[in-house]
Amino acid sequence: MFPNSSLLAQRTAARTPFAFAARTHQMMPSETRALFSMAARQDIVSLAGGMPSPEALPAPALRALLDWVLAAEGPDVLQYGAAQGDLVLREQICSLMRAEGIEAVPEEVLVCVGSQQALDLVTRVLVDPGDSVVTEGPTYVTALSTFAAHQAQVVEVAMDQDGVVPQALADAFELLAAEGRPAKFFYTVPTFQNPTGRVMPPQRRHDVLEVCCRAGVPVIEDNPYGLLHFGDQPYRALCADAPDSVIHLGSFSKTLAPGLRVGWARAPRAVSSKLTLAAESAMLSHSRLTQRAVSSFLETGGWQDHLRAARGLYRDRRDAMLTELAASMPDDVTWTAPNGGFFVWLTLPEPLDARAMLPRAVEGGVAYVPGTGFYVRGGERHLRLSYSYPSVCQVREGVQRLAEVVHAESTGSGVPRLREVFPR
Amino acid sequence: MFPNSSLLAQRTAARTPFAFAARTHQMMPSETRALFSMAARQDIVSLAGGMPSPEALPAPALRALLDWVLAAEGPDVLQYGAAQGDLVLREQICSLMRAEGIEAVPEEVLVCVGSQQALDLVTRVLVDPGDSVVTEGPTYVTALSTFAAHQAQVVEVAMDQDGVVPQALADAFELLAAEGRPAKFFYTVPTFQNPTGRVMPPQRRHDVLEVCCRAGVPVIEDNPYGLLHFGDQPYRALCADAPDSVIHLGSFSKTLAPGLRVGWARAPRAVSSKLTLAAESAMLSHSRLTQRAVSSFLETGGWQDHLRAARGLYRDRRDAMLTELAASMPDDVTWTAPNGGFFVWLTLPEPLDARAMLPRAVEGGVAYVPGTGFYVRGGERHLRLSYSYPSVCQVREGVQRLAEVVHAESTGSGVPRLREVFPR
Repeated sequence: MFPNSSLLAQRTAARTPFAFAARTHQMMPSETRALFSMAARQDIVSLAGGMPSPEALPAPALRALLDWVLAAEGPDVLQYGAAQGDLVLREQICSLMRAEGIEAVPEEVLVCVGSQQALDLVTRVLVDPGDSVVTEGPTYVTALSTFAAHQAQVVEVAMDQDGVVPQALADAFELLAAEGRPAKFFYTVPTFQNPTGRVMPPQRRHDVLEVCCRAGVPVIEDNPYGLLHFGDQPYRALCADAPDSVIHLGSFSKTLAPGLRVGWARAPRAVSSKLTLAAESAMLSHSRLTQRAVSSFLETGGWQDHLRAARGLYRDRRDAMLTELAASMPDDVTWTAPNGGFFVWLTLPEPLDARAMLPRAVEGGVAYVPGTGFYVRGGERHLRLSYSYPSVCQVREGVQRLAEVVHAESTGSGVPRLREVFPR
Repeated sequence: MFPNSSLLAQRTAARTPFAFAARTHQMMPSETRALFSMAARQDIVSLAGGMPSPEALPAPALRALLDWVLAAEGPDVLQYGAAQGDLVLREQICSLMRAEGIEAVPEEVLVCVGSQQALDLVTRVLVDPGDSVVTEGPTYVTALSTFAAHQAQVVEVAMDQDGVVPQALADAFELLAAEGRPAKFFYTVPTFQNPTGRVMPPQRRHDVLEVCCRAGVPVIEDNPYGLLHFGDQPYRALCADAPDSVIHLGSFSKTLAPGLRVGWARAPRAVSSKLTLAAESAMLSHSRLTQRAVSSFLETGGWQDHLRAARGLYRDRRDAMLTELAASMPDDVTWTAPNGGFFVWLTLPEPLDARAMLPRAVEGGVAYVPGTGFYVRGGERHLRLSYSYPSVCQVREGVQRLAEVVHAESTGSGVPRLREVFPR
């Protein structure tokens, strides 16, 4: 069909005509993701990934609900939807957020492809290249990728056991303002943080909000784990007490199913209208089908019972991890004791290095995420353990294997004794 | 729970702390989208939207396939997926593209949230603020939104009945290079273009590729309609003859169902790896569930029969529209005769103005999209008619109503006579 094939010869010889945008120079494959393929090996107990447990994914209920939705609504649910998302689902999301004290209306809510897209769109409408963004140190690894993709300058602020340190946060804001590059926002995961599992208690929330309000810095509150609390009540969201200056991000990925890719952003109306425009140019609209699946699950799928069961399941695994850590780790290793969510944050004694140790851990049959992935710089002594995906038995086994590796590392023997214990 | 509620009072009085990024200044609500809500009125025949026909959305088949997928694969299909997309689906997409002459491998393919997200990610990895991008004039409206969101400078190049004019394209490239801002890429919908319905014949494809190769400008080939051809064979894609310098965008939104939000980009490997990183920071991963739905439809859902039926359905509506236009429009109105896809492009005689006429058309019971939406500047004499969504009867009715409005407009009576003909 093509009369002149000389183009083919030309292009083979030619250099690629593609020239990348400056923002791509900061796009790097994440350490965490690279681990996921390795962690899929049968002989490895992976404490690395932050996926929900397969037992907590309600496949039979979603199967029945999708069948019902397609039967009842037919082709309608297969059409394009509104850029802002399904109105009924946005109303349900408003009800859902009330459990954490947030009073919102559907106009303030944008349904997104997971809260990851919500964070990407928020960054897109707020951050110019070179702008400063303040985060907790450590912080969620893919938030760092998103900020890098938008060429933000990330400033990490130290945490203690109650989350970010208010005075350190105030100092960072002041320094940035003095340097003529005031913080565009403060990004925080205040409840069962990824990677530390820490939660800000009420007084700390109050203090942090006060620091942000005084400095005029808005807050991005990322909250995928808030409803997976092991205590009786959820924590009150930052957004509940400062709705005009907090954007709240939520997700059904941890509570229902990541494969549906349904999350949201709740923002003041002036911001949510910009977010909706950004979403339209980014993807036209979200899947009506997966939105209706979530919506019908919230309506008739036994949402509260499902959440209760998921909390129980993750609490058992958390218990197993903490018990096994206490039983098997050397005395100079410390870790957090999360009261919800998916993660424990472990600190090794000097001079151990979690990243350098990883190949030996994998050799010993266990995987984790080195702390360095969660910091712009540093984090060598830390590592993240997740109890969400492996069973209680696997959690115990994984922690035992890890303890052996740490013992070997500490005594400098270098060779984990696990090869005898767990022959492969 | 919150000890000090003074923050609440503070924030009410305070100015919003949110400061928007520069790119948001170019984010505007699109005329087309605004029309969609109006066009949903029962008394209006809408020839505006570019949605597929409900009759062409295989709801029963997808219902059965989703049921099967969830039964067979259970929680797995509800987990996070790979950022690049499901491997089996990427293999199937490679097979699919072979119909249009493209030889691709799965590593070159990224599965996206519709081809809209593919275009957004391509722009994200290639375009810095202020960069020049060349398009056909007119062009796809939401591509203009995406380019604006990335602060690109759009240069539109004139078309004739065979698509973009090669000499005009060469001149634009030369001028931009001389001004020190060479084109980052040429964006084209070569087959059944949105909004004109035009197709580039093989010789024009050759000439356009040659112009782009000589100027060293890569091509973004957006191809949502290529498989909805009314002739015997699909057209050979630009990408088939210059795979190293063409990024090909495809979609299942027009051929299968937009509500699944599955599209793709095929790019040279160096570009597809950047696109995958960009996708990861933009949304982590696509929905495994909707990807598996598409994949299983391609495997067992009667894809070829489905496509054949959809082509027949749209051809009948195209025939109805062209017949009715010939029968009812004034002699000085002209239009395109598409051989595939969803759209007819109509040109009014001077001094008529399609945007100014729209309220009177709506009053007369018909909606369309004014041409101005598809141009950076100009387009007043044009309008886009879509025959994809309304039935054959509605297409005829809509064109008759529109002809009445154009007659009234031409004779200067200003008042459509339709109110008597179609009382509401």
